Amino acid sequence: MKLDDLLQQDSEWVKGTGPNSNIVMSSRTRLARNLDKFPFSNWANKKQLAEILAIVEGAVRSTNFLKNSLLLKIKDLSEVDRLFLVERHLMSLDHTKNPEYKALVIDPKEVVSVMINEEDHLRIQVLQSGFNLMEAWRIIDEIDTELSKHLTYGYSARWGYLTACPTNTGTALRGSVMLHLPALVFTGQTGKVLQATAKLGLNVRGLYGEGTEASGNFFQVSNQASMGRPEVDIIDNIERIINQIISREETTQKALLGKNKEAVVDRVWRAYGTLKSAHIITSNETIALLSTIRLGVDLGIVKNLDKMLVNELLILTQPAHLQKLEGKLLSANERDVKRADLIREKLK
Amino acid sequence: MKLDDLLQQDSEWVKGTGPNSNIVMSSRTRLARNLDKFPFSNWANKKQLAEILAIVEGAVRSTNFLKNSLLLKIKDLSEVDRLFLVERHLMSLDHTKNPEYKALVIDPKEVVSVMINEEDHLRIQVLQSGFNLMEAWRIIDEIDTELSKHLTYGYSARWGYLTACPTNTGTALRGSVMLHLPALVFTGQTGKVLQATAKLGLNVRGLYGEGTEASGNFFQVSNQASMGRPEVDIIDNIERIINQIISREETTQKALLGKNKEAVVDRVWRAYGTLKSAHIITSNETIALLSTIRLGVDLGIVKNLDKMLVNELLILTQPAHLQKLEGKLLSANERDVKRADLIREKLK
Repeated sequence: MKLDDLLQQDSEWVKGTGPNSNIVMSSRTRLARNLDKFPFSNWANKKQLAEILAIVEGAVRSTNFLKNSLLLKIKDLSEVDRLFLVERHLMSLDHTKNPEYKALVIDPKEVVSVMINEEDHLRIQVLQSGFNLMEAWRIIDEIDTELSKHLTYGYSARWGYLTACPTNTGTALRGSVMLHLPALVFTGQTGKVLQATAKLGLNVRGLYGEGTEASGNFFQVSNQASMGRPEVDIIDNIERIINQIISREETTQKALLGKNKEAVVDRVWRAYGTLKSAHIITSNETIALLSTIRLGVDLGIVKNLDKMLVNELLILTQPAHLQKLEGKLLSANERDVKRADLIREKLK
Repeated sequence: MKLDDLLQQDSEWVKGTGPNSNIVMSSRTRLARNLDKFPFSNWANKKQLAEILAIVEGAVRSTNFLKNSLLLKIKDLSEVDRLFLVERHLMSLDHTKNPEYKALVIDPKEVVSVMINEEDHLRIQVLQSGFNLMEAWRIIDEIDTELSKHLTYGYSARWGYLTACPTNTGTALRGSVMLHLPALVFTGQTGKVLQATAKLGLNVRGLYGEGTEASGNFFQVSNQASMGRPEVDIIDNIERIINQIISREETTQKALLGKNKEAVVDRVWRAYGTLKSAHIITSNETIALLSTIRLGVDLGIVKNLDKMLVNELLILTQPAHLQKLEGKLLSANERDVKRADLIREKLK
């Protein structure tokens, strides 16, 4: 398997299958782990970083789960390839910087990835399409158990797993789901709903994680605290709250087909018309319009359009994906033109 | 001929044929005339108004030009029919009010119309598609000559034709053209060009005359003064200035296909995509989008689309036209829905 093969398959992140996939695009679990005999990556010297990398690599290769995975040295990757992996949510933007001793492990199905020497020695991630957080937990727990047979983690009986940033200490588990909430946005209810969500101990972020704004009605919701209760409870708590948001979004979607129907139908078809017609389009506008079309498909307004195609366009129209498809570097203006070309071609 | 027959034919106002019809939609001349033995309409009593109406009606019926024309009593028309005639530029909005002794004469081709008892006893108008102002003058002069054999006008050797409003006294001639200047608007040059036009003694107004804003890149330009020089000179002066504006617009359109090409292509196709997709659309947005598509047809960006259809939609999507097509009164919201339906159907 090679990196470029990923371009031929649907990213688990936007595949849009699995339970409640009309509202939950994907579910993700993440564990942070550190080797007990080494300083955290940002404090380690070059020799130590090289050693950490070698040890983790060896352990990964010894697991059943990851023995056939792709192991990428970040320093060997072009800038576009690095951003390509970020766009597929297989690694963080931070992981593209100071790449000397960093690596990324990806299983061929893009379900599992491991960042080596990001701020923690290991950041293990499991992605599942749709609302599948407990399954994502089950898989990551299994991988963690397997890896722990080959690695000795920094762990305190009092604090739990030790991590570079204290907010992750404890279980070092982050569970998150990417939600698509067009009806709540349309009716102006998102502020209230997401405030309530925050009060219940969950963070809300945009499409590309921390520091990014929610765009196109997509929201990432994850737990704030990872300490003080067992992993299964953390996951269970997120699931319960997300279930309430799902139900609220579903009710609102149905209500939209009542008195707001013409306005929704108008907005959906205009979005479709614009995407089929534009010759210059930014990434942000694309996400917003695709989001509206997704709603249209879910509400049965747009027929004869495969939602998989909408999901696929969400990822293929990202800057690095576009450049990989074109096989060359493109300026922002050139990307806006190529993006519009690609969308028109795909929606023809 | 009946009023409703007009709905089946292209309004001369937006027919879009004739010289320079890519930039000049239509040309119009107007003469104001008053009978010498009666006060102006706004000062006349009911008996006098009835007499004026009868006298002018008799004269109109005696001319070759207008003997087969449609003579409509404004009081007999529904509100929608009145607005329908305003939308076709066959009469003014003022003429719809206090309709008791008002009438409108229309020749079957909609080239000539005569308002009786608007602010002047007669307001004669000739419309020509495209840039045809001198021809519009020639026709109106002929009608005026014919009518004057049957009517005695208020005329002063010193001031010329006497009119209700002193700004019209003299020749009482107004020549105007409706310009479509999308490239000048696109490149932000309209302000400068239209300011210069005003300095040269021409008025600039919106699509529906005095007090209306220019919308969708359409501008009406007409002479300010109607006194102090012969009619042919007035027309000639307008033509010379308009020729300069046309040439400026043409140069700018060509330049647009240079470095701004992608942006223009994008805007044109987005306009087309929106019109083909919208389910709710206002009259103003419709005019703006149709205007952009017109530019696209003129620049060869949109092929396989008859510009006549674009022109036809400009008039059919107006509120009264929509209601006549539907055969019933519609609220503004209902019109926005029906307008979108009609456009999608016509552009299919």
